[in-house]
Amino acid sequence: MPRGPDELREAVEGYLGALELVAELGTLAEPVRYSLGGKRVRPVLCLAAGEAAGGELDVLLPAAAAVELVHSFSLVHDDLPALDDDSERRGEPSVWAAYGEATAILVGDALVAEAFRLALTAGPDVARELVEATLGMIGGQQMDLEGGHDLAELHRLKTGALFSASIMCGVWAAGVPEPEHGPWRAFAAELGLLFQVVDDILDGDGYVVEVGEARSRELADEAATRAETRLAAIPADTSVLGEMVARLAARTS
Amino acid sequence: MPRGPDELREAVEGYLGALELVAELGTLAEPVRYSLGGKRVRPVLCLAAGEAAGGELDVLLPAAAAVELVHSFSLVHDDLPALDDDSERRGEPSVWAAYGEATAILVGDALVAEAFRLALTAGPDVARELVEATLGMIGGQQMDLEGGHDLAELHRLKTGALFSASIMCGVWAAGVPEPEHGPWRAFAAELGLLFQVVDDILDGDGYVVEVGEARSRELADEAATRAETRLAAIPADTSVLGEMVARLAARTS
Repeated sequence: MPRGPDELREAVEGYLGALELVAELGTLAEPVRYSLGGKRVRPVLCLAAGEAAGGELDVLLPAAAAVELVHSFSLVHDDLPALDDDSERRGEPSVWAAYGEATAILVGDALVAEAFRLALTAGPDVARELVEATLGMIGGQQMDLEGGHDLAELHRLKTGALFSASIMCGVWAAGVPEPEHGPWRAFAAELGLLFQVVDDILDGDGYVVEVGEARSRELADEAATRAETRLAAIPADTSVLGEMVARLAARTS
Repeated sequence: MPRGPDELREAVEGYLGALELVAELGTLAEPVRYSLGGKRVRPVLCLAAGEAAGGELDVLLPAAAAVELVHSFSLVHDDLPALDDDSERRGEPSVWAAYGEATAILVGDALVAEAFRLALTAGPDVARELVEATLGMIGGQQMDLEGGHDLAELHRLKTGALFSASIMCGVWAAGVPEPEHGPWRAFAAELGLLFQVVDDILDGDGYVVEVGEARSRELADEAATRAETRLAAIPADTSVLGEMVARLAARTS
C-alpha cells in the first residue's frame, strides 16, 4: 500500500521544518522560513512520482524540497512591488510587506541558491532538471511583464515548467534511466495546464476571461483525462499520482 | 609558455560573447547580456588556476563563465533601488536604470540560474562550489543591510567567497582530486581580502575609513605576500597566478 498524498505532505512538512539552511545566510534564515508556506502540491507530486518509480523517501525528499524552494523563490520575487505588487500571500503579509523589499530580494536569491544546493545533493540530473525549469519560469515572468502573449505558452513556462520538473526530479532521484523517461515526461507535461486552468476557474481570471468559465471547465476536464491516459501508460503503480490528478481537477481552493 | 592574463581575458570575452542563453529567457536575453560588463578578474583567475592545475581551456571556460554570471547577478541585484540604489555601473546606467526594476530583478534571477546551468556542464563539484559561494555572498549582502558587523567577516562573505570559488571552480574543473585541494584553497582564501582592501583604497571607503589609508596599504601588501607564499606551496607552474596577484596588488582602477 503506497503512501497517500496526505502522508507524503506530512513528510515534506517534516523535512522542510528540520531543513538546515547554510549558516552564512545569518538573519535571512527567518524570512526564508517564513516564505515556505503553501499546500506542497509540487513536492508531493515529486515524492509520489519518485515512490511510484521505485525511489526511497529519504532519497527523494531533498529533490522535493528543492522544487518547493524554487516555487517559493518565484512567489517571493513575483510579489515584489516592482512586479505584481502583492502585499498579501496566503492571507498573511508577503515577504516584502513583512520584512522590506531589500530583504525580500535577498530571500528570493537565497531560496533559489538553497534549492540548487539541495538539488545537487539529490544528484546532477535533478539539479539540471530544476535549473531548466527555473529558467523557464523566469522567462515566463518576463513574458507576463510584457503582456500580449499567448496564454498557453505563458502558462507552459510560468506554471507548467515547474510542475513538469516536480515529476521529473522525482523520477531522476529514483534512478530511472533516461531512455525510460518518455511516458513520465508525457504525463508531467499535462499537469501544469490542469493546475493552471483550475486555478483560473477558482480566481475567475486567465482562461476564464479568455474562453469563459464553461469552456475552462472543459479544458480542465480534458487535461485531467489526458493526464490519466498518460499515467496509465507508465509501467508502475501510479495510484497515488492518479489520486492527485483527481484532487487537482476537483480542488476548490 | 602558459597563456597570460590578457590572453585568458580574451578567451573569456569570446566565450561570453558567443554564449547561448536558453531560448525560454526570450527578451530577457538582451538585458542579461547588457549586464555582463566588467574586468573579468574572477573568470581569468578561474582559467589561470585551472590551466595551472592541468585543465584544458575549453573545459574550464564554462566554469569561468559561471563564476562571472554569479558576479553579475550580485551586482544587478545589489544596484536595485531597495538595496544600494546605484543608477550607474561602470559609467553606464545600471540594469534597473536602463530596463526598469522588474526586469532587473528577473535579470539577476536569470543570471544566477544560467550560472548554475553552466556550472553543471562543468560538473557537479563546480556547481556545488559555486552554489556555496553564492549563498555566502547573499548572506554577506544581508549582513551589510543590517550594518554594525565586523568588516573582515563581511568582506569574507561579500567578496572573498566568490574569489575563492573562482580559483576552486578552476581546480575542480581541471579534475584535481579533493585531497590535493588544500594548498589551492589556502591560496584562494587570500585573494578576496587583497582585492577588497585595494578596492577600498581606490574608493577611499571600507578599510580606509576603518584603519586609515597607510594601514590599508600595509594590509594589502601583507595579503599579497601571504598569497605569494601560499602560491609557492602549490606543486605546479603558477606563474600566471603570480602575475595576477601582482596586478591585483598594484591595480589603480
